[in-house]
Amino acid sequence: MSRLSSVRDALVRAADAARLAAHAPYSGYRVGAAVLASDGRMFSGGNVENASFGLTICAERSAVCAAVGAGVRRISAVAVVADGPAPPTPCGACRQVLAEFAGPATPVWTASAGGRGLRCRRLGRLLPFVFRFISASPPAAAASRHVCPRRTQSGS
Amino acid sequence: MSRLSSVRDALVRAADAARLAAHAPYSGYRVGAAVLASDGRMFSGGNVENASFGLTICAERSAVCAAVGAGVRRISAVAVVADGPAPPTPCGACRQVLAEFAGPATPVWTASAGGRGLRCRRLGRLLPFVFRFISASPPAAAASRHVCPRRTQSGS
Amino acid sequence: MSRLSSVRDALVRAADAARLAAHAPYSGYRVGAAVLASDGRMFSGGNVENASFGLTICAERSAVCAAVGAGVRRISAVAVVADGPAPPTPCGACRQVLAEFAGPATPVWTASAGGRGLRCRRLGRLLPFVFRFISASPPAAAASRHVCPRRTQSGS
Amino acid sequence: MSRLSSVRDALVRAADAARLAAHAPYSGYRVGAAVLASDGRMFSGGNVENASFGLTICAERSAVCAAVGAGVRRISAVAVVADGPAPPTPCGACRQVLAEFAGPATPVWTASAGGRGLRCRRLGRLLPFVFRFISASPPAAAASRHVCPRRTQSGS
Repeated sequence: MSRLSSVRDALVRAADAARLAAHAPYSGYRVGAAVLASDGRMFSGGNVENASFGLTICAERSAVCAAVGAGVRRISAVAVVADGPAPPTPCGACRQVLAEFAGPATPVWTASAGGRGLRCRRLGRLLPFVFRFISASPPAAAASRHVCPRRTQSGS
Repeated sequence: MSRLSSVRDALVRAADAARLAAHAPYSGYRVGAAVLASDGRMFSGGNVENASFGLTICAERSAVCAAVGAGVRRISAVAVVADGPAPPTPCGACRQVLAEFAGPATPVWTASAGGRGLRCRRLGRLLPFVFRFISASPPAAAASRHVCPRRTQSGS
Repeated sequence: MSRLSSVRDALVRAADAARLAAHAPYSGYRVGAAVLASDGRMFSGGNVENASFGLTICAERSAVCAAVGAGVRRISAVAVVADGPAPPTPCGACRQVLAEFAGPATPVWTASAGGRGLRCRRLGRLLPFVFRFISASPPAAAASRHVCPRRTQSGS
Repeated sequence: MSRLSSVRDALVRAADAARLAAHAPYSGYRVGAAVLASDGRMFSGGNVENASFGLTICAERSAVCAAVGAGVRRISAVAVVADGPAPPTPCGACRQVLAEFAGPATPVWTASAGGRGLRCRRLGRLLPFVFRFISASPPAAAASRHVCPRRTQSGS
């Protein structure tokens, strides 16, 4: 087995395992995702649904949060595994969140439970013409301009 | 009937009517909301669910979008009407979005279909210690600092 | 001028006008959008940002909410106009929300302020392999299963 | 030092450390959060902003995702630490997501960088009258009803 397929298989297995920890009481549809950081580490997560549907966080975004929290800023491969007979496809929101940390050539592997129906598509094919927000100054400078950014509160 | 109760009733009726236009195929739970602008105009909206649950927009936020799109920046009363026997209560996300345009004394009326079980709570009671993002400079100045904010794109 | 270009121009003008009502104090980046319903009506909206960035609603979604609230379930064309020199491109989240009501052939017109740099891309090109949530039963049936869907509350 | 304050301090330290890994190039406002699971384990995360502001995930939600992904379904304490001189207060969306896994008595500790200005409020005080979605059947049964929930796709 090649090194490439070895990494891919480990990523799909991590996504499949993360699926089992998903919190999906409202849809009954569990999804797991795993991302490969540019430094070789893997991070995974499942979907976390909410009573207010709009606050649901998909598996892909959950995995991205785990990676970012560990200092990752570059993702080089993604795997998504979902319940049901058909291989999943990431929603538009997740494609956008992945694009914050991954490039158009990044492979996105998708499969059904157990890794069945494995398929690969590049992120650039899933989300062409990606939206980016670019100001005239670098992020660090932009941040410093907020001299006193803070959360304040007004009592009830 | 007092002028106050007249306005309240009109707001609740608008929310109840908006409920019927909700797009809620995933939850089967339709909600309508209406907001009263400080200039006396009313705006309403229903929940707009999405196949990707996390992209669902609640009725309250839908109504706020309608108001803001018409130039409103100050909301002075809110009504929410939902399917089901129990009067609804806004989710935390909607409370936060309402707080962007309304103050702690703003009344939030809730009722079941047809206006049954009408109840009122102040926004400040629903969302005390509200989160605000405040930079050291006024929004207009902050905006001008983004000399060249734009959406760019990278081809696929 | 053909009827097609006439409709297109009206849609772009509506999006451009909606841009001016955007609430974008955090990014300073105003966007307006307009959607053409299958029955010929037009609906528009601007982005509605929030102190909690994650609660921001893009212009495209704001316009969709307006249409859905008026009973629309089928969108046949979209226009998006944004501040800045470069024509915008919808984010992944908005593409997904548009796909809830529009098909892959739906034209998405984008332009800079004043309609400059007008460009068209099909929704199917912007969001190929779209995610859909399909249960084994039709939505109406699924809804009826929630015998008693409701918002409940626990006092503080 | 009591065992309680020891746990609290560890939670605040974890949140403060997670703050340093936040991805906040758009706001320049880094936040870290940590949650204590009912089994004693701690999980943390930072905010993960996105070019499309509406896809931003707050620190609190990032930490919840980490906990849920590890099998946690019950959170017994929360800590949030943010940049800036004033202690933060969770946004409404995060309060709602916390309420999915925590009860009204759950303490939410907030502090500025380094743990300064430590303060505690109960979740039930931050989000009274919490929204819940309750169907007539238990989640497991609801899930099984979706005989064939799946993501499908239509080619571009």
